[in-house]
Amino acid sequence: MDTQSRKAVFLDCDPGHDDAFAILLACYTEMFTVLGISTIGGNQTVEKTTNNALRILELIGKSNSTISVVKGVLQPLARPPMVCPEIHGDTGLDLRPGCTLKVPDATQQPITDKPAIQFMWESISKYYNENNGEKVTIVATGPLTNVALLFLVYPQVKPMVDVSILGGSINFGNISPASEYNILVDPEGAKVVFESGVPITMVPLDVSHMALVNKEVIDRIAALKKEGDTNQFIDIIIELLLYFSDNYKLIFDFEHPPLHDPLAVAYLIDPSIFTSRLLRVDVETSSNLCLGRTVVDLFNFSKLEKNVNVCTNIKIEKFWDMLIHAIDNCYNNLRNKK
Amino acid sequence: MDTQSRKAVFLDCDPGHDDAFAILLACYTEMFTVLGISTIGGNQTVEKTTNNALRILELIGKSNSTISVVKGVLQPLARPPMVCPEIHGDTGLDLRPGCTLKVPDATQQPITDKPAIQFMWESISKYYNENNGEKVTIVATGPLTNVALLFLVYPQVKPMVDVSILGGSINFGNISPASEYNILVDPEGAKVVFESGVPITMVPLDVSHMALVNKEVIDRIAALKKEGDTNQFIDIIIELLLYFSDNYKLIFDFEHPPLHDPLAVAYLIDPSIFTSRLLRVDVETSSNLCLGRTVVDLFNFSKLEKNVNVCTNIKIEKFWDMLIHAIDNCYNNLRNKK
Amino acid sequence: MDTQSRKAVFLDCDPGHDDAFAILLACYTEMFTVLGISTIGGNQTVEKTTNNALRILELIGKSNSTISVVKGVLQPLARPPMVCPEIHGDTGLDLRPGCTLKVPDATQQPITDKPAIQFMWESISKYYNENNGEKVTIVATGPLTNVALLFLVYPQVKPMVDVSILGGSINFGNISPASEYNILVDPEGAKVVFESGVPITMVPLDVSHMALVNKEVIDRIAALKKEGDTNQFIDIIIELLLYFSDNYKLIFDFEHPPLHDPLAVAYLIDPSIFTSRLLRVDVETSSNLCLGRTVVDLFNFSKLEKNVNVCTNIKIEKFWDMLIHAIDNCYNNLRNKK
Amino acid sequence: MDTQSRKAVFLDCDPGHDDAFAILLACYTEMFTVLGISTIGGNQTVEKTTNNALRILELIGKSNSTISVVKGVLQPLARPPMVCPEIHGDTGLDLRPGCTLKVPDATQQPITDKPAIQFMWESISKYYNENNGEKVTIVATGPLTNVALLFLVYPQVKPMVDVSILGGSINFGNISPASEYNILVDPEGAKVVFESGVPITMVPLDVSHMALVNKEVIDRIAALKKEGDTNQFIDIIIELLLYFSDNYKLIFDFEHPPLHDPLAVAYLIDPSIFTSRLLRVDVETSSNLCLGRTVVDLFNFSKLEKNVNVCTNIKIEKFWDMLIHAIDNCYNNLRNKK
Repeated sequence: MDTQSRKAVFLDCDPGHDDAFAILLACYTEMFTVLGISTIGGNQTVEKTTNNALRILELIGKSNSTISVVKGVLQPLARPPMVCPEIHGDTGLDLRPGCTLKVPDATQQPITDKPAIQFMWESISKYYNENNGEKVTIVATGPLTNVALLFLVYPQVKPMVDVSILGGSINFGNISPASEYNILVDPEGAKVVFESGVPITMVPLDVSHMALVNKEVIDRIAALKKEGDTNQFIDIIIELLLYFSDNYKLIFDFEHPPLHDPLAVAYLIDPSIFTSRLLRVDVETSSNLCLGRTVVDLFNFSKLEKNVNVCTNIKIEKFWDMLIHAIDNCYNNLRNKK
Repeated sequence: MDTQSRKAVFLDCDPGHDDAFAILLACYTEMFTVLGISTIGGNQTVEKTTNNALRILELIGKSNSTISVVKGVLQPLARPPMVCPEIHGDTGLDLRPGCTLKVPDATQQPITDKPAIQFMWESISKYYNENNGEKVTIVATGPLTNVALLFLVYPQVKPMVDVSILGGSINFGNISPASEYNILVDPEGAKVVFESGVPITMVPLDVSHMALVNKEVIDRIAALKKEGDTNQFIDIIIELLLYFSDNYKLIFDFEHPPLHDPLAVAYLIDPSIFTSRLLRVDVETSSNLCLGRTVVDLFNFSKLEKNVNVCTNIKIEKFWDMLIHAIDNCYNNLRNKK
Repeated sequence: MDTQSRKAVFLDCDPGHDDAFAILLACYTEMFTVLGISTIGGNQTVEKTTNNALRILELIGKSNSTISVVKGVLQPLARPPMVCPEIHGDTGLDLRPGCTLKVPDATQQPITDKPAIQFMWESISKYYNENNGEKVTIVATGPLTNVALLFLVYPQVKPMVDVSILGGSINFGNISPASEYNILVDPEGAKVVFESGVPITMVPLDVSHMALVNKEVIDRIAALKKEGDTNQFIDIIIELLLYFSDNYKLIFDFEHPPLHDPLAVAYLIDPSIFTSRLLRVDVETSSNLCLGRTVVDLFNFSKLEKNVNVCTNIKIEKFWDMLIHAIDNCYNNLRNKK
Repeated sequence: MDTQSRKAVFLDCDPGHDDAFAILLACYTEMFTVLGISTIGGNQTVEKTTNNALRILELIGKSNSTISVVKGVLQPLARPPMVCPEIHGDTGLDLRPGCTLKVPDATQQPITDKPAIQFMWESISKYYNENNGEKVTIVATGPLTNVALLFLVYPQVKPMVDVSILGGSINFGNISPASEYNILVDPEGAKVVFESGVPITMVPLDVSHMALVNKEVIDRIAALKKEGDTNQFIDIIIELLLYFSDNYKLIFDFEHPPLHDPLAVAYLIDPSIFTSRLLRVDVETSSNLCLGRTVVDLFNFSKLEKNVNVCTNIKIEKFWDMLIHAIDNCYNNLRNKK
């Protein structure tokens, strides 16, 4: 891969089963430098999602790497926090009974002596200044509170970044008829980010509901495991997907669960597998019924400046190829370590 | 046609080019008894839409028929009136330069000595009582103010009716990113109707945007005209469609205009050409951004009682067959009159 | 009293203990012609308030008079109904244990064969036309649904009326921190009335909370009773006040209850005992927190047309003189009847 | 004065003519340690209010003191910024023609290399830790964005502070009928602060409109000047008040302008001159009409936890004594410096 197309990313997330795959995909794509991981409450409390970020790094062999985890804020911009144990379980990264995910390496701890946004600012500006003004992409796969606060408190960061968001929807929602979960949790935070002037790509529910983890996907991942290998990595990856699958069946009656979050990483790796349009998107913050709706202005009724590159379709097979390739990379890396 | 399946309808509308076709379709379907036409502001002011209702009856040979026109209220339930001259012109039923639509027969006047809702109540309850409790369908192809007021002031009418609405949307809007025009004009009126407990079928934009008046449709209508006939009816019908087409091109950049309103009649004639689902639908009345949105709860997040039979698809060729058949009926009727 | 200053009033109310005194005051003031009483849900359901209107007419010797009672609509313009048994009891006109209020005379029944607004329109327009265009004042002491519907359905009534409202507040509320009860029950109805262009006087909570039924008021009423008289009228009047008093103590911790509703009548009898200012008043219909607030624009920030004559103070002793005089009139009339 | 009652304060403000007096009062009260001044946009842009803070420190002889000025954020939490040149002029601290306020000492510059909230956190926690857990009071006399961000990003500061706010209202507003300016500029920021759990005292408009700068106040200040003194301080103080007075006359038709901001300092110096009650206060963030209203729950309708100590009255002569005493202190200090 051409070094010129190497990209620096900062992951802001609320792991979460699907966030795990976003982290894996970002860490095992050759083209990426992962500057850090900041956490936010959403799938579970920020304490739990922070711990989960460490567990995931441990799982994928990136604990004690250069990738720091920094704990984000405790609550959305102007509302009380929400969590989603129905889908992600009590820890936010539950597995089916009998399976366990290793606790993080004791030597690896999240950064808590400075705010997440200070760490984000320092690492992003350092990278930007040391790389001739090359922008960093913030990949946001949880509620947008940290990113909003970064833009409010360090507005000088805005020319240094663009943002790739998993969240919002063009049509239907997944937590209310009108709204997608990440945006509903912090609609004011989303509003700040969407109105920031920073270039934004949004992978909405309409696209992520195409990334369904069906039997074929599971089989392809299972097939990666070398015969006789005692390494549990592939098994745990599959357990993560199956736990997620069971709850999507239970809660949404989905035959197969949509693997949302890695799509926001996939867009950065290869935008050509997505169809997207620059559109005006506004966030509903005042109504109960439509709270958190991302109002996508397909016909430009508002005449407002177009602010979001909205993905509308994906060549889904290409995405699975990409993700399974990263899983395989990770697996081989783990086997070689021993 | 079996008389038992004969249906009584009351048309509540804001004509309007597409309302003209709804009226025509209702009047020239053998299975219908049209009890009356009430008007409402929307496409234009209620004065103009009332006059247009009379012009349409004149055009289709139903002036001085048993079908009375009654003028509805001047304003939505809790908001100032809106009109849409961009699409329907200054009269609400404009034609292209050089064409004219005859003024109503001087002997035909709208009912103005009693409120529209009183006339609706009287004619609906009379029909219901004289026909062994057979329900009347209110076909509402404009803002829902008259229907809401009917339900508020004469709640005893509720068991006597069901409602077929052209309006609302599942996904995108046509007056704002979130909202369809008829509902936006009177969101509180729509809320009253949707929460009335009366059985409702809604043909949303998502379906009416499938009924595009393309060249083939125009050609089929043009072909109805007998060679050498001096009757202008078919020409005017086509002019109505072409004026509408020009404005949809200009305002929405639509190649072909969607002929919304007759779909609410078509559903009554043959529901089997539609796909529909009983769903919870709520109307946004408090937010600026989403005002007038019909929030359709596809996944039943709200757990509220399902209140609207929402059409989601249509066999569009069957619809054109039905409409063109009615135009032909009307044309033949007019020719026979002479 | 000069016949030229004789006024025609139509009472729209939700009796209710304090509505009882509004009806009494209107019926026993020489200067008034009471055209009718329409009822609305508020203090209790419209069925109960209709029955209460009849019970009050019976109590004050006006059953079988020219004053008809007509039952209003079942629900507010765009919301479900509310009732207030905490203050007015299960019947809406409860008395303390051991006391009873006579059921209405069997020959007196409410008008139910036409909508309240049709009766209002007919009696108001008849009076107006027979009296050289003399306006009728609608005295509205409950939620404003009937009045709003009258204006929507019969807009031609607007030049024939003005409205005197008991409701709203300048500062604090009595059902939420922001809102007064009558307006909260139907904020959209209030909006329609306030924006109708019809001249409106509003006696807000800020003034009605000055009309406290203290011991001196009770004593003055008790003193009206002739020694040895077996007529129970004065006793029941006092029981109404004491029941009301007990609940205001219990719910609001008010030492003495405010006798709101007759103030809207009192303003018509003698506006000189009130201080008032013409101001812009708008009604909050979209926010949960402030729903039903009457936003009174003391400094004319909005630059909108001033639409309401807002009472800000009252010479309260003059009001008690006026009310006690009417009670005495009523009492003497009842004694003379026998 | 007893050192035990010495208080540490941090001033968060948007100077502003009345903020100038808040700063002066805080800096010339023996009992206070002023830890710093953070600025926010409101009366003018944050760039201008930051410069004004420096100009005021220069004026009162506190430039190059231990009091640092730190520039706050550029915009409210979830809305675009607002300014108020109608009252405070183009610089935010205009004087009448012919008068000038010195530019800040060139050696004095605001802190801009770290966010205001980081400086606030560092100085407050340092003081708290070095003084046996003695709390610091944040005196907030502008929009509450900085304070909200401090609480969101450094929640560990909450047990170390309480807040004294000039802003909000119980009854009427000063920028809309419903709302006070500081709260309207950032309603979400105010919501975060009011719901933070930190002890809050609020001096609302209802009280600050009692602190009217009448002729007697001006005369008392003028009388402080020693005969023949060439020091311009007293003259400029009076010019600040007269400029403010002219605009309040022009915009609000107030005979005398209310000197809002120093009241939030005065409460800390001597709470006994205020009447106050602990009440529930919520901030309206969703409605256009009532946006920014502080809904004060006098009757505890909401049953929510009481969160704000709301001032309802003041012994206003005691306040003027206090303020004029501080002006005199400052004047004497400036004269002694020479």
